[in-house]
Amino acid sequence: MKLIRFGKVGNEKPGVVTESGKMLDCSAYGADWTAAFLGETSRLEDFKKWLASNGDSCPEVSASERLGSPVPYPSKIMCVGLNYSLHAKESGMEVPKQPVLFMKATSALSGPFDPIVIPKNSNATDWEVELAIVIGKKASYVSEEEAMGHVFGYVLHNDVSEREFQLQHGGQWVKGKSCDTFAPLGPYLVTKDEIKDPHQLRLWLKVNGEIMQDSNTSDLVFNVPQLVSYISQYMSLLPGDIISTGTPAGVGMGLKPPRYLKAGDEVELGIEGLGVSRQRVEAM
Amino acid sequence: MKLIRFGKVGNEKPGVVTESGKMLDCSAYGADWTAAFLGETSRLEDFKKWLASNGDSCPEVSASERLGSPVPYPSKIMCVGLNYSLHAKESGMEVPKQPVLFMKATSALSGPFDPIVIPKNSNATDWEVELAIVIGKKASYVSEEEAMGHVFGYVLHNDVSEREFQLQHGGQWVKGKSCDTFAPLGPYLVTKDEIKDPHQLRLWLKVNGEIMQDSNTSDLVFNVPQLVSYISQYMSLLPGDIISTGTPAGVGMGLKPPRYLKAGDEVELGIEGLGVSRQRVEAM
Repeated sequence: MKLIRFGKVGNEKPGVVTESGKMLDCSAYGADWTAAFLGETSRLEDFKKWLASNGDSCPEVSASERLGSPVPYPSKIMCVGLNYSLHAKESGMEVPKQPVLFMKATSALSGPFDPIVIPKNSNATDWEVELAIVIGKKASYVSEEEAMGHVFGYVLHNDVSEREFQLQHGGQWVKGKSCDTFAPLGPYLVTKDEIKDPHQLRLWLKVNGEIMQDSNTSDLVFNVPQLVSYISQYMSLLPGDIISTGTPAGVGMGLKPPRYLKAGDEVELGIEGLGVSRQRVEAM
Repeated sequence: MKLIRFGKVGNEKPGVVTESGKMLDCSAYGADWTAAFLGETSRLEDFKKWLASNGDSCPEVSASERLGSPVPYPSKIMCVGLNYSLHAKESGMEVPKQPVLFMKATSALSGPFDPIVIPKNSNATDWEVELAIVIGKKASYVSEEEAMGHVFGYVLHNDVSEREFQLQHGGQWVKGKSCDTFAPLGPYLVTKDEIKDPHQLRLWLKVNGEIMQDSNTSDLVFNVPQLVSYISQYMSLLPGDIISTGTPAGVGMGLKPPRYLKAGDEVELGIEGLGVSRQRVEAM
């Protein structure tokens, strides 16, 4: 199942994309895709039944409607750094022996077709296509074997990053990762049953039509169950929490010379089975 | 005004501490101290009027009642590292030229008298008394002059930290800062009008009755308006967001030899005007 949220910023309504590609307004079901919904397997089952009975009477969502982040208000976005070996190399870093974690403020979340707004004083706004995991059941000290039972699904994420803020403004990476609009998420949240193998998905990103990143999640250094298990040794992962699994090679910082986003650029990205998103780049 | 939340984990109710020190159950007012309440100055004014008329009929909260975090579900906890020069020195680091920021997962939040649970595989769980700022009005690119207009109030925070997780497990500090129970907050959220000068507050922390940290917020490297303004250049600060301003010298890591918390220890901490909290240390 593919869950969407559509409508104006802050007033998004829940919906789905059907197998035939139609978008349906499911507000009549009476629940948004919040932690309370994502955290209970029975809620998804209940919704599936409801949709089977009521889908025909759900209004269609116009293709011109804005899509929002399909996950509202996660408690955290945990990101994994340097999780593709060629990206570690282009960043001038070693492939890590254990996952490198950093956080992105949830205030950075935006819709999959919302603009990326270049922050004030930015010279180095960069792109990063990533497979993001969405947590279902709370995970604390789970093993790799148990980990998949705590995953709700997957979503496409552009982990937009300001490299000077991230690396040259002192201290930790969070400054370059958390600017508003730096986390376009979606188009939809795909339940895990639809993704046969999350480690066999092509992912790619284009800037102004030119392919910049083109890889496969088979190249992940630490895979989905390893990441869920690993992070859960340090903290509880709550329903709706997002784990962004890292980006493959081909970011702007890795080019010689580096190339960064400027107003008017268009970024397009996709992951097999998780759809395509597109962001226009704007100045403030 | 001093705002509290009391009751069982996940079912806390809103209340206040009166000038005479009584705790009152204000559930009848019909609002919790969420972002919606904290973000609108008019809501606090409305509540003050309500309390003046209805305070006498509010039930008293028993002193044996559990207190929860006075701020529920903040979108983020942004922490400032090395913001007292003697603490930077004891950590073997330089006093930073601009604020060092890192995030703490909000899943770490707990009540001011809840136990600190030492995580599995931990050898180095440490204490950090900190002045935390609670944001009122959303702040994006605010100047230092405007910054105080975006502050709702202040709260006492123990920024509990696992030093091996933080510094020796690869990458960023978040691993050592985000374990469950690592953010005891409170006892109460004090509105800014009650704190004449947030840069003249004694703060201290004891372990088993022995004073370990004893300093004053006058020693902050970057002060409250500087931090609010600085962080707002990188991301939006939302109502309810917490900025923990850093800890003074006297943490366990800085002792020779280092000393860390063990099951059975009792940590007590306080800040002038913001009350006292106390946590028993437990094994998992």
